[in-house]
Amino acid sequence: MDNQTQSLDNLVSHFSSLPSIGRKTATRLVYHILRQSPEFAARFGQDLLTIHEKVIFCSNCFNFTEQDPCPICSNTERRSNSILVVEQPSDVALIERTKEFKGLYHVLHGVLNPLEGIGPEDLKIRDLISRLEGITEVIIALNPTVEGEVTAQYLAKMIKPLEIKVRKIASGIPMGHQLEFSDEATLARAIHGATEV
Amino acid sequence: MDNQTQSLDNLVSHFSSLPSIGRKTATRLVYHILRQSPEFAARFGQDLLTIHEKVIFCSNCFNFTEQDPCPICSNTERRSNSILVVEQPSDVALIERTKEFKGLYHVLHGVLNPLEGIGPEDLKIRDLISRLEGITEVIIALNPTVEGEVTAQYLAKMIKPLEIKVRKIASGIPMGHQLEFSDEATLARAIHGATEV
Repeated sequence: MDNQTQSLDNLVSHFSSLPSIGRKTATRLVYHILRQSPEFAARFGQDLLTIHEKVIFCSNCFNFTEQDPCPICSNTERRSNSILVVEQPSDVALIERTKEFKGLYHVLHGVLNPLEGIGPEDLKIRDLISRLEGITEVIIALNPTVEGEVTAQYLAKMIKPLEIKVRKIASGIPMGHQLEFSDEATLARAIHGATEV
Repeated sequence: MDNQTQSLDNLVSHFSSLPSIGRKTATRLVYHILRQSPEFAARFGQDLLTIHEKVIFCSNCFNFTEQDPCPICSNTERRSNSILVVEQPSDVALIERTKEFKGLYHVLHGVLNPLEGIGPEDLKIRDLISRLEGITEVIIALNPTVEGEVTAQYLAKMIKPLEIKVRKIASGIPMGHQLEFSDEATLARAIHGATEV
């Protein structure tokens, strides 16, 4: 026991099992919580306790949701003929904030990674294929890593024969960055994907 | 709603109200928790929910404890004539890890800070004074800030007339550091507090 009491230690262990939180930070957080009102810890605890009951996967797009189908899938004002494919539920929130995309989403819950034994059956790929009736365009928004690129190629090979347009979000120089500090692969991709001005 | 569901947003708000955790980190933590087993969130939530019930203040030293008096105060093998005074409960854990001190503790729960309106009555100073029967030595281990120094002086002025030895932990060059990179105040304090070799 680092902190004299078992309850404190348990809580420190929970916090320090989270990414980017070490034992020292976790200890600081727990002492901070103890200095707040008991109501704060109670609300925080209650919300954590019930998060897995309340938040489920949308059976259509596999994003997190509290109602099935999710608010995006059941929103009739969105373009229902376009699907944007992402790796994680958090990517949906990220893209929604850009307000650039008005269609539907599909969350793969990972990318192909043969080295780690992650194949097509481990992802929501079959569910994506079964949603393609009436879809005219699929936009792939996976991370521009080797695994992301391989997965994008795999999806394109399955979807293109169905006469659906498959596009991939652009790779290039981030806005506000300087060419000088870009790596060669990014620069090459930016030149390859040059668009009309 | 940033993340489409109210439950996710609530949890993100709780995490981002903690020190050093911004909204982006909080969102990452919540998505991480959702990827873990429901049991993890349940245990974490349960422990948070009950932390204020389980962890109380020791009525003797005012450290956090699950039993009153705390394990340190009720440990008969510790030297009961020596009290080490700290600012926060977390300082007790810190000092216990050094294994240098075998006496009892007293947690002030703050330091004097007239600018913020924190006077002697807001701290556990009166409780300290009422514990001094049979005590032969008080060691003050407050942070070497202006407020910490002022509080140490205040305590010394109250305790010394009772013919109790009052000492203060040493300020000086941290172990492994170089003189070259020490500020003048620290160096002056280190020279002032020079000890025999």
